[in-house]
Amino acid sequence: MFLPCLLSLCSEEQQAYWVPAARSKKVLGCYAQTELGHGSNIQALQTTATFDPATDEFIMDTPTTQAYKWWPGTLGRTANTAMVIARLLLPQESSSSSPPSYKDMGIHNFIVPLRDLHTHALLPGVVTRDIGPKIAFAGMDNGCLELHAVRIPRANLAQRFVRVTRQGVWSRVEGTHSKAAYVTMMQVRAIIVVHSARELSKACTIAIRYSAVRRQGFDDSKTGSELQILDYASQQYRLLPLLAASVGFFFCGRAVLTLLAETEDALLKGRKGQAEVGALMGRAHAALAGLKSLCTTIAADGIEECRKCCGGHGYLACSGLPELSGNFLQQCTVEGDNVLLTQQTVGYLLKSYIKWRTGGPVLDEECQYFVTAADGAHAEGLGEGGKGLRDEPAVLSLFSRRAFATLERLALRLQSLTEGEASLSQAGAWRRVLVDVMFVSRSHALYTVLRHFAAGLQSLRDGNDVSGVGKAGADAAFIQVLERLFFLFAFYHLSKEAGDFLELGLLSPEMVARVRGEVEILLGEVRPDAVALCDGWDWDDFELKSALGRWDGRYAEALLASAKREPLNHQDPVDGWDRTWQPQWKVEEQMERARL
Amino acid sequence: MFLPCLLSLCSEEQQAYWVPAARSKKVLGCYAQTELGHGSNIQALQTTATFDPATDEFIMDTPTTQAYKWWPGTLGRTANTAMVIARLLLPQESSSSSPPSYKDMGIHNFIVPLRDLHTHALLPGVVTRDIGPKIAFAGMDNGCLELHAVRIPRANLAQRFVRVTRQGVWSRVEGTHSKAAYVTMMQVRAIIVVHSARELSKACTIAIRYSAVRRQGFDDSKTGSELQILDYASQQYRLLPLLAASVGFFFCGRAVLTLLAETEDALLKGRKGQAEVGALMGRAHAALAGLKSLCTTIAADGIEECRKCCGGHGYLACSGLPELSGNFLQQCTVEGDNVLLTQQTVGYLLKSYIKWRTGGPVLDEECQYFVTAADGAHAEGLGEGGKGLRDEPAVLSLFSRRAFATLERLALRLQSLTEGEASLSQAGAWRRVLVDVMFVSRSHALYTVLRHFAAGLQSLRDGNDVSGVGKAGADAAFIQVLERLFFLFAFYHLSKEAGDFLELGLLSPEMVARVRGEVEILLGEVRPDAVALCDGWDWDDFELKSALGRWDGRYAEALLASAKREPLNHQDPVDGWDRTWQPQWKVEEQMERARL
Ligand SMILES: Cc1cc2nc3c(=O)[nH]c(=O)nc-3n(C[C@H](O)[C@H](O)[C@H](O)COP(=O)(O)OP(=O)(O)OC[C@H]3O[C@@H](n4cnc5c(N)ncnc54)[C@H](O)[C@@H]3O)c2cc1C
Ligand SMILES: Cc1cc2nc3c(=O)[nH]c(=O)nc-3n(C[C@H](O)[C@H](O)[C@H](O)COP(=O)(O)OP(=O)(O)OC[C@H]3O[C@@H](n4cnc5c(N)ncnc54)[C@H](O)[C@@H]3O)c2cc1C
Repeated sequence: MFLPCLLSLCSEEQQAYWVPAARSKKVLGCYAQTELGHGSNIQALQTTATFDPATDEFIMDTPTTQAYKWWPGTLGRTANTAMVIARLLLPQESSSSSPPSYKDMGIHNFIVPLRDLHTHALLPGVVTRDIGPKIAFAGMDNGCLELHAVRIPRANLAQRFVRVTRQGVWSRVEGTHSKAAYVTMMQVRAIIVVHSARELSKACTIAIRYSAVRRQGFDDSKTGSELQILDYASQQYRLLPLLAASVGFFFCGRAVLTLLAETEDALLKGRKGQAEVGALMGRAHAALAGLKSLCTTIAADGIEECRKCCGGHGYLACSGLPELSGNFLQQCTVEGDNVLLTQQTVGYLLKSYIKWRTGGPVLDEECQYFVTAADGAHAEGLGEGGKGLRDEPAVLSLFSRRAFATLERLALRLQSLTEGEASLSQAGAWRRVLVDVMFVSRSHALYTVLRHFAAGLQSLRDGNDVSGVGKAGADAAFIQVLERLFFLFAFYHLSKEAGDFLELGLLSPEMVARVRGEVEILLGEVRPDAVALCDGWDWDDFELKSALGRWDGRYAEALLASAKREPLNHQDPVDGWDRTWQPQWKVEEQMERARL
Repeated sequence: MFLPCLLSLCSEEQQAYWVPAARSKKVLGCYAQTELGHGSNIQALQTTATFDPATDEFIMDTPTTQAYKWWPGTLGRTANTAMVIARLLLPQESSSSSPPSYKDMGIHNFIVPLRDLHTHALLPGVVTRDIGPKIAFAGMDNGCLELHAVRIPRANLAQRFVRVTRQGVWSRVEGTHSKAAYVTMMQVRAIIVVHSARELSKACTIAIRYSAVRRQGFDDSKTGSELQILDYASQQYRLLPLLAASVGFFFCGRAVLTLLAETEDALLKGRKGQAEVGALMGRAHAALAGLKSLCTTIAADGIEECRKCCGGHGYLACSGLPELSGNFLQQCTVEGDNVLLTQQTVGYLLKSYIKWRTGGPVLDEECQYFVTAADGAHAEGLGEGGKGLRDEPAVLSLFSRRAFATLERLALRLQSLTEGEASLSQAGAWRRVLVDVMFVSRSHALYTVLRHFAAGLQSLRDGNDVSGVGKAGADAAFIQVLERLFFLFAFYHLSKEAGDFLELGLLSPEMVARVRGEVEILLGEVRPDAVALCDGWDWDDFELKSALGRWDGRYAEALLASAKREPLNHQDPVDGWDRTWQPQWKVEEQMERARL
């Protein structure tokens, strides 16, 4: 995070100095935003940077325990420099009184040296600590930071977008966009979406390979060989939709990277107007927030479900799944808590909705579906027009209409809560509807994943795929397998969330029953290709680090080999056994002797 | 498990010898059932116990790697004796041929000495190992066991229910019930239900207390103090239904313990006939399987959700939540995998259903609801009859009708799959419908939890509560708070699983919308009592081991104190920094010197 921040937040002069220093690892940087007391509400961060005109410096302070920076990776023992997010306090022009009074300019970014670059000793006024053991990442010294009147030169304010003059006057750098600083955050979120696909696919690979070699339970005959556990419909139902999700997230990740590249391009190359850049930023921000939230939620739950699907052996570290899961869990919290992110996406959707309903400008791609979804008259339903259930446009239309209807319901609800007699404030009403907000964001994001999934399939069919999937030879049979995954993903979620579709009148009860039946049929169809699809992700044994997910299927040998490596086994009886268990005997023997 | 097994599986003579030895910790026992290759399918275990008439011994063998015992707690380094589950092989009477042929008598229990009781050295032919690191329980040496022609006396067969004579003839002990051996397993499952309530309540206590002191996000004013995160509807929606679940599981646990006590009583005191005991066992077995599966699933997911609700700090070990979660996760797998258990419950329900439909005997308490649920005509719906939504009987009736309707649908489906031309075998059809089986079991168990929850409330209202809840003073206000939790739990699940109710025509779309609204209202009503309800569980800080869930709310101080204890912080710069980071400088300095 430190290097990307230098690149996105610092001026060219600053970058000329800091970037090579960071690249050469002389400057070991960390990104220090979160405080003990505040993570999500950045506006409430308490660390201060007070400008001192007398020395032309900022004085950095963490005034309370709550203000201590808390969490930054490498801050504990490794980093010698931090990008610190702090409130900028400028002396009031009018004030020559003592004590001087300050104006709070809000959150800004500062490069703060923490340690001597040669001796690695902490600089005066700086205290850092490792914050202690975590679920995973034992090797990462996430740290805490106290700053007590630490002085840094004025030049250490990150200056790409804002400046403070020698006199302590603040200004925005001309031609820069106020939201441009969010680009780094969006980049990281896009990478997390890609990461969700990859980590989930690893867990699926382990669990599906294992389920194909693990045999448990007799065939009808009750003798002879047992069934592969992957042949139980319940095991398929737990695993195969996750495999489908990993593929959907893959296409989705590709789409958001493209969207982001466009946005950065517009932003950095300055080829578009402020308004246009702003719109692009807003759109990318809303899209990424909702997708990051949905994809990491499904992937985190999914990795754990893969682990459970391995039975007891999934509880062993050597299965690889506990580590995969523990590492991934943080993704639901970092870079925007998953629940909070739903507010950001829905805030944007509502704004777009209201603008559009009141005759505003054309909708962007994220919201384009409002038009068709609102036009119920032209909606051809799933399974209508003789096309059967496997009808991509009908599936997309269905999910888009669900998303739109829940959004519209929310908009109306907010309106009625803020109007009339016992009306609430905007913020009060918002707090009241936060449960709906979660579900609207989820509905929108699910539709978006499906949209990107379908677009990915289309590009394969058109023969112009650029993702590398095509390279594997996107012949018709392969595309058909991916299409099954698309429908499996869609119908799995449709049947799990059937309540919405039924309540909104988008599907009939009979149709829901048919969709449920179709999920079962699809599970059976995907089953024979499941292992090959996992192999297609191309994880090697070294990357999976799993005794259960080995390419050769020899899990029993791998489990045994792993047990043999356990240090506890190198001595028997273990040291100290005589001090812990033997005394029981000793006491008894003494008593017996006493009795003699 | 070892001691309970001695008590339930061994004859009185055997108990007289082994029980005192185990109680005095001379005999350190473990329960060795699971093998590397088999857990769920006990019928396929491969360890053998071959009777040798020549020496009057059993010869114990684990013939393949897959047969190695794998997982038993304390087996690795601690246990000196194991209760080993193995196939009993008896020489065929007719066979005087060499090699002799054996008859496989199926799974039996054997007491196998593993180590010398005095020196703790492994006995000849025995190999044990610790199986390596796990998600949690680092202190427990779950182990693996190889047995190579290990001889044990014939007397070491657990003989409460079966005997083998000196001549190698097998017989069942008269007057014992064939299923009696399952009692231990049921006891453990009942304890797990109780445990689900307790562990979930711990996680809720941590997360809810923290949510009441954690402030994040401004009130409308955008200045001044921030909101408690527990005041966001989304946070309430994630946490309060879990608190309600913990209370529901508490009542449920009490009910299953009572049921089990009845069953044991009937079994052990021999006051009832074989058929009656069999019925009671079947009923308890089915009830416990489904409840263990549902309660541990909800509790495991719920503990993790509580962790996520604490944001980044929930990822720290000192929050107490990672350990709580890691420890609990095994409960979804041990003592019957949660998915497999659904088959056991539904198998029982289907049998009862078919017997009943074909004019069979009266239904037991678990299935009593079939009668009213099938009788649609007399069903008074939720919100009908002017009672509003908070109508316990109507809620119970609704959930029972859902469970019944899904069960009936499954029964019809199985019938149609096994009849007609392209019909499947019973087992083949069963494998096909396993997804439905999961959902039917869940629906039944959810109804059962609600039934026990409502019965618990009724006993409080009647003033004859025996659980200890009443002791806290079951006044009307307290009962009202618990009633809110009942409705919150019910309506939360109703709205999440609304698809079923709508598809089955049990609720109208308007009603589902009302139920959703009611969930929000209930969240607001429960909110003010949430912390007090947690306090009511009476966990002290020592038991919670959580920096976030402290009784005094001082989480910031606790986090900081915990960081200060981290050993990494006792030295700065850390040892070895010069070998890892400094070289960057060295290289550069040398280059500069070279240039001079
Ligand atoms: C492994 C790891 C690495 C990290 N690395 C870094 C790093 O390098 N640098 C750095 O600066 N930080 C880092 N962080 C911190 C991370 O960015 C924060 O944890 C994250 O932003 C969430 O903030 P929080 O922990 O304060 O949660 P909180 O905001 O306190 O959230 C707690 C709960 O309250 C809810 N909530 C909060 N506000 C609202 C609201 N307005 N409406 C509804 N609900 C709300 C949340 O949904 C959540 O359930 C790291 C964290 C972890 C776990
Ligand atoms: C912490 C811990 C402690 C333990 N302690 C002990 C102990 O002291 N003594 C002991 O003997 N054992 C112990 N065990 C082992 C435990 O009992 C088994 O792990 C458990 O019975 C599950 O069996 P399995 O691991 O073989 O899973 P499997 O049966 O291999 O299950 C793997 C997957 O296949 C599915 N599956 C299997 N069969 C079917 C079927 N017929 N239909 C549909 N799906 C199916 C399951 O749902 C699961 O998803 C312990 C395990 C753990 C994790």
